[in-house]
Amino acid sequence: MKRIVIVGGVAAGMKAAATAKRRSPELDVVVLQDEAEASYSACGMPFSLGDPDTIPHASLVVRGVERFRADGIDLRVRHRVEEVDVRAGRARVRSLETGAATVEPFDGVLFATGARPIVPDIVTEPGAPPIQPLRSLADAEALNGRLRPGGRVAIIGGGYIGLEMAEALRRRGQSVTLIEAAASLLPSFRPDAGAAVGEALARHGVSVVVGASAIGASRGGLTLSDGRFVQADFALAAIGVRPRIELAAAAGIAIGETGAIAVDAAMRTNRDGAFAAGDCAEARHAVSGKPVWLPLGDVANRQGRVAGANLAGGDDRFPGVLGTAIFKVFDLAVARTGLGPEDARRAGFDPVVVAAAARGRARYMPGSGDVHAMLVVDRTTGRVLGAEAHGPDTVDKYVDVVATAVWAGLSADDLAELDLAYAPPFSPVFAPAQVVGELARKRVSRRPSATL
Amino acid sequence: MKRIVIVGGVAAGMKAAATAKRRSPELDVVVLQDEAEASYSACGMPFSLGDPDTIPHASLVVRGVERFRADGIDLRVRHRVEEVDVRAGRARVRSLETGAATVEPFDGVLFATGARPIVPDIVTEPGAPPIQPLRSLADAEALNGRLRPGGRVAIIGGGYIGLEMAEALRRRGQSVTLIEAAASLLPSFRPDAGAAVGEALARHGVSVVVGASAIGASRGGLTLSDGRFVQADFALAAIGVRPRIELAAAAGIAIGETGAIAVDAAMRTNRDGAFAAGDCAEARHAVSGKPVWLPLGDVANRQGRVAGANLAGGDDRFPGVLGTAIFKVFDLAVARTGLGPEDARRAGFDPVVVAAAARGRARYMPGSGDVHAMLVVDRTTGRVLGAEAHGPDTVDKYVDVVATAVWAGLSADDLAELDLAYAPPFSPVFAPAQVVGELARKRVSRRPSATL
Repeated sequence: MKRIVIVGGVAAGMKAAATAKRRSPELDVVVLQDEAEASYSACGMPFSLGDPDTIPHASLVVRGVERFRADGIDLRVRHRVEEVDVRAGRARVRSLETGAATVEPFDGVLFATGARPIVPDIVTEPGAPPIQPLRSLADAEALNGRLRPGGRVAIIGGGYIGLEMAEALRRRGQSVTLIEAAASLLPSFRPDAGAAVGEALARHGVSVVVGASAIGASRGGLTLSDGRFVQADFALAAIGVRPRIELAAAAGIAIGETGAIAVDAAMRTNRDGAFAAGDCAEARHAVSGKPVWLPLGDVANRQGRVAGANLAGGDDRFPGVLGTAIFKVFDLAVARTGLGPEDARRAGFDPVVVAAAARGRARYMPGSGDVHAMLVVDRTTGRVLGAEAHGPDTVDKYVDVVATAVWAGLSADDLAELDLAYAPPFSPVFAPAQVVGELARKRVSRRPSATL
Repeated sequence: MKRIVIVGGVAAGMKAAATAKRRSPELDVVVLQDEAEASYSACGMPFSLGDPDTIPHASLVVRGVERFRADGIDLRVRHRVEEVDVRAGRARVRSLETGAATVEPFDGVLFATGARPIVPDIVTEPGAPPIQPLRSLADAEALNGRLRPGGRVAIIGGGYIGLEMAEALRRRGQSVTLIEAAASLLPSFRPDAGAAVGEALARHGVSVVVGASAIGASRGGLTLSDGRFVQADFALAAIGVRPRIELAAAAGIAIGETGAIAVDAAMRTNRDGAFAAGDCAEARHAVSGKPVWLPLGDVANRQGRVAGANLAGGDDRFPGVLGTAIFKVFDLAVARTGLGPEDARRAGFDPVVVAAAARGRARYMPGSGDVHAMLVVDRTTGRVLGAEAHGPDTVDKYVDVVATAVWAGLSADDLAELDLAYAPPFSPVFAPAQVVGELARKRVSRRPSATL
């Protein structure tokens, strides 16, 4: 290819652009980004909002527009792609500054259009508090501008953005009410994770409402489905995102069963010369083999790298995801990887679940706390399928070790016997992964050695 | 077996005793321990000495003697085994309290005699400062008793005990001089690790002498091999340990090429009914297949568990070690796993070494620092063989992920593509393991996909 057009310039788009240009310097790489900045860390916004002195807003920009241009990437911010004709190799582009439209020819195109926040279905009366999402840097700026000393904020949605923002807004001295429509917090995790998060929120003065959703907004706050009224100066809508697929769909690109753009391991869509990557695209689960949609920053970067290499004539493959994810709310980390028991059953495994509270470091060390570790293994083979964990301490390490084990197809026996780094400040003699591995090996059918 | 005698009651011995009794409650389990306490965390002693208010000495005892007895384990402290006759199934035991000798019959015996500190070869004049090791709880008590406000301590040896104690003694307000005989600190690690440790020591006011050893002790301090004199009120001897094998050797037990007791994967020695585990025993390296001697607390516990299960009639296997180890000195962690380049060459691999300074968490997060990560892979197959790392941040996680990858036989490609837990407080988008995996995959012969 000689000229590629990349639609979207945040994580996947800019990683693809940089990779393509590095692999093939003679390639014309055009990136069209509708926002004012490109290549920023959306995941960092709650942390910057919570502590802007330590993490200034500007620090979230990974690389400035000028630096991409200096590297020979034709990055155009505030430009929106209105239509893509894959067969003809043309994109119609409109400048959001001047309103002028141009046509950009291409030999290859990447849809890196990301995701957009779901707008909650709320009847809004005049004078009602504004309801805004947190998706773009502009959203973050707007939200920051709404903060007042002693302000009151309602957070609609108890997912990881809602939880991270609950912490951020408490740090900024706001009164915070978090509204979760499900009957309990974190319904897709084990109940003890939701309970622990609830306790952390309560300890830090966040009011939590579960089992009700915001249905109306009027002067001074939100009306909930159970009739309650939550006072708020403004509300953060954090009930999730959906893939931005309209442009691709209109161009005849196939949408997968998850609702995101269907891609193969090379990040190719069903149309020759058209690729997709990042939050608008599917990924294959490395254990179940099924397509999944995981709008996460690290997945977007890795998919973008593969798409960029292949747009530059390469033959790279994205080997798939495990659904590994982590977030923090106050002093609590919550994480998971691989298949949960239900997913495992659907994928044809016979899941065994074990759980234990295992110290994250030597019991006598300051800061030592419990990792509430859950592990899913296949009863027949002992294969490690997934894990979940929460706690104040080394949860990330537990989940990364299990993610590596899942990736490798290791068994519960292997997990129990791993030679991990032990010293009192870092780990107890038996690390959480070894503790649950030991529990799990006793529950599986195949044992490599007979014991009493 | 009906009655087992375990010689030594710290990590391997007590883990074996507890495992054997749990697996086979009718078994008579006798543990003979020459110290006053059993089952203590020797690894925790530097941390307790450095901060006794937070980590009292007593907190290092994992389980009190009475609790083992309540579980039906005949644990006798202050009892020394003087002779073992494996064929006859008899051990001669002397009480260190009364001086009385008894003969203990057994059906099976475990040597868990540990290691003893190497005594430095120093000519000592009258009035010279005492020179003591740190191996037992009694050593820790003695050392604690020597501390005076404004005291001066010389540490002979720059291994992990010497370094941990340098930090501990600085915390206790002592003037500390660390004496390392090699030409630089940490000679078995990469030079940048030794340099980083040297900087950390200097930042925290520890004087460091390299390329000289203590050869004389006289009033007021130590004379070094280069003629210098180091003032000290007392000296800590931390030049390493040797396996305590004399009792086993006298009983006809074979000693391996490392100098420790040779064992198979079941922790059996060459004599029927005699097992060995812990710091007195060898282990097999899971990658090289060669016997190694790694006197580490976690290995001792895991070997003890296998030996205890097998003494109780089981057929467990210890699958080997990777040589994973970590220590901390001030704000710096240093760790490694698997084979270094020299070991890899000796084991028949063609090692490629890559290294990078990779952020441990998102660049803008407070506390984010570099993991100086090194990775060894096999050029022919891409297999991950080992790693080394140092830095202030998430070094333990990097090494544990690589250890899991080495254990599983994963390749550099796998490491680059792992789906690890990303969120700004825990990891950058590309974790250190992925960064060095990406560097390494470009250096190996076999690539699963052709790229530009």
